[in-house]
Amino acid sequence: MLKDNNTGTPSTPSGRIRHRKRSTEVIPDASKANGNRLLVNDQSKYKSMLIRTYSTVWMIGGFALIIYMGHLYIWAMVVVIQIFMGKELFSLLRKAHEDRQLPGFRILNWHFFFTAMLYVYGRFLSQQLVNTVTSDKFLYKLVSWLIKYQMVICYFLYIAGFMWFILTLKKKMYKYQFGQFAWTHMILIVVFTQSAFTVANIFEGIFWFLLPASLIVINDIGAYIFGFFFGKTPLIKLSPKKTWEGFIGASFTTIIFAFVLADIMGRFQWLTCPRKDLSTGWLHCDPGLLFKPEYYSLLGWVPEWFPWKEVSVLPVQWHALCIGLFASIIAPFGGFFASGFKRAFKIKDFGDSIPGHGGITDRMDCQMVMAVFAYIYHQSFVAPQNYSVEMILDQVLRNLTFEEQRALYLKLGQIFLDRQFGQP
Amino acid sequence: MLKDNNTGTPSTPSGRIRHRKRSTEVIPDASKANGNRLLVNDQSKYKSMLIRTYSTVWMIGGFALIIYMGHLYIWAMVVVIQIFMGKELFSLLRKAHEDRQLPGFRILNWHFFFTAMLYVYGRFLSQQLVNTVTSDKFLYKLVSWLIKYQMVICYFLYIAGFMWFILTLKKKMYKYQFGQFAWTHMILIVVFTQSAFTVANIFEGIFWFLLPASLIVINDIGAYIFGFFFGKTPLIKLSPKKTWEGFIGASFTTIIFAFVLADIMGRFQWLTCPRKDLSTGWLHCDPGLLFKPEYYSLLGWVPEWFPWKEVSVLPVQWHALCIGLFASIIAPFGGFFASGFKRAFKIKDFGDSIPGHGGITDRMDCQMVMAVFAYIYHQSFVAPQNYSVEMILDQVLRNLTFEEQRALYLKLGQIFLDRQFGQP
Repeated sequence: MLKDNNTGTPSTPSGRIRHRKRSTEVIPDASKANGNRLLVNDQSKYKSMLIRTYSTVWMIGGFALIIYMGHLYIWAMVVVIQIFMGKELFSLLRKAHEDRQLPGFRILNWHFFFTAMLYVYGRFLSQQLVNTVTSDKFLYKLVSWLIKYQMVICYFLYIAGFMWFILTLKKKMYKYQFGQFAWTHMILIVVFTQSAFTVANIFEGIFWFLLPASLIVINDIGAYIFGFFFGKTPLIKLSPKKTWEGFIGASFTTIIFAFVLADIMGRFQWLTCPRKDLSTGWLHCDPGLLFKPEYYSLLGWVPEWFPWKEVSVLPVQWHALCIGLFASIIAPFGGFFASGFKRAFKIKDFGDSIPGHGGITDRMDCQMVMAVFAYIYHQSFVAPQNYSVEMILDQVLRNLTFEEQRALYLKLGQIFLDRQFGQP
Repeated sequence: MLKDNNTGTPSTPSGRIRHRKRSTEVIPDASKANGNRLLVNDQSKYKSMLIRTYSTVWMIGGFALIIYMGHLYIWAMVVVIQIFMGKELFSLLRKAHEDRQLPGFRILNWHFFFTAMLYVYGRFLSQQLVNTVTSDKFLYKLVSWLIKYQMVICYFLYIAGFMWFILTLKKKMYKYQFGQFAWTHMILIVVFTQSAFTVANIFEGIFWFLLPASLIVINDIGAYIFGFFFGKTPLIKLSPKKTWEGFIGASFTTIIFAFVLADIMGRFQWLTCPRKDLSTGWLHCDPGLLFKPEYYSLLGWVPEWFPWKEVSVLPVQWHALCIGLFASIIAPFGGFFASGFKRAFKIKDFGDSIPGHGGITDRMDCQMVMAVFAYIYHQSFVAPQNYSVEMILDQVLRNLTFEEQRALYLKLGQIFLDRQFGQP
């Protein structure tokens, strides 16, 4: 039995089965002892691969079904994943002995968790609801009221938790309790930052959620396969099972897939149209220039040998390349971070919910880094192109009363006048 | 020499001098031994009081000067306080031995600190700048560009720090490094959440920053004085020097001061007008109904005995009561939290920047809780009265080009025309 010299724990077969996907099982000691032994030659590993493949296929199938069902269901999936992650992470640094002396201390975590949920989603939900229920005056007022006071409600829920924490501080447990308090907050930030961005992406068009998420999965699988068959050179000390061969192979795979997938996904209005309310029906929209093909004529020698004269590219495919680049170069650092963390606290996996993969959190590490990037990228480089007049007009007609609309109109007119005559 | 039984450290005279303001030195053991001994009878404490009073007067004087100088200077003061707090808190959980083996690890903290600063203030600054420089086409475009890409820039600065952290992880130091990483993030959240809210308050009108901040100071001083002269009954185990007498006396003082101060501050346009740009000149505005006196006629017997027939109240004074209530009941929990934290990590003070008070952080604990509340309160119960039109106008002027603004104006006009003649 090999000893994993970095964690100091024996890596039993069952332990290995639960290794992370991008891992390539080139354990430094072993590779020194046996020369550059490839994983592909290690027969005992095929069983592990089978289990992983099996659960991967199931996950992808379920995922596709949810995508087909639409925005609200994807959102629900995100919430479920979040709750599982919260569960895994909350119990990670918990000490049973200390907890027994602190009744109700675990509930406090969930109090903060659901307060954060109310804050992040309440905000988002009510904005969408306003769009959904404009026809009903009473509901409209109710939702407007909720939007208006949502911050106060969440703030007081938070403060209640904060006071609860302080009033239940127990002598000799201070350090443990403050540690747990900080840990809870770290979890909430990590889990909710990413999920807030993810949900925002979904409603900008499933495309902006699906493409980044798929690319992370493809990069994971790519690294696993390339590492499995060619992995020799260790990539990073932190995570001795990752190899340069896996990393580079996966990068090329991911970038190619990014370009191809964007072309395919870009053809479905279901994926490209934004959804501005909470309805679930079919979507129709003008997807905009980004999703209209541009034609590039090919160089002289291609038409001579092949029956193609020009190639059509959706402009969004260039954006997809940037996202693919990020997914293959920077997002893996999310995985390194998680590896380092697990090493620091001497744990193998964050949980055991998915056979062959570990916990949900183990599968989400890079996804989290990616979701934030995808959102910021979309907001900064994609969305502004169709920001503007129509959007603001929409807001004006939706959120202002007739009198307010008129007031706005008059003020604008005044500003133009001032500007024309050079007044401040 | 008395033994402080909760921290287990002997409380030397110099240690006591640096105790927190609201403390009242009724150490449980001592009070049991000597009967209900009041602090006012303890002659050795007057020197400590003198030092505190002296630095308090200096602080209040400097503060008043800064208020007089205006919004930008108050902002600068907030930034300076922030940097000091960062310095105090960063060094708190640091271990010299570990740090010597991790060159550059301290810089990483400041990298994250200034990234957070760029994020929070860059966002705010550029919005104000847009209003300041609308006359200059080039600057206007530059600032618009900065607004547009600020998120991307900050994100990549953050990611750079994140990758730096991962690549400098060192074997056997993992746990310390991850601990420091989490601690850094906690500090950034605490320090920047509150300062972002504080700065927002300042520009809504100095009133909304000055009143809450003053009330915390008044509550602190009130608790100190009432505790000093009457303090007997311990309030909370966490902080054995706080007493119920101090707490209740301070509450009444704070609420009365809230009502009176709001009346005084409400009369200065310098304090009540919002500032929408970065200019520093004098402010004129219509402060709105909140700051216009309402008259209440007094009950029958008062005019009989006194020469008053009615009393004038600014509506904002009722809001001030709510803020005073929060400052005296809930904000002190910020202090309890800090006490508990110091106890958990066995430290006396967060620093020693202010003679008689400890570190800057020691003076800011309740201020932080207060600033967030003041902002949320203002946004939810005060601002909405002139919400909407102003906000959308802001958006229009900031995000649209001149041509787009005109297009919006024309479309709005068309819609009104259609509406008038009953068209859809």
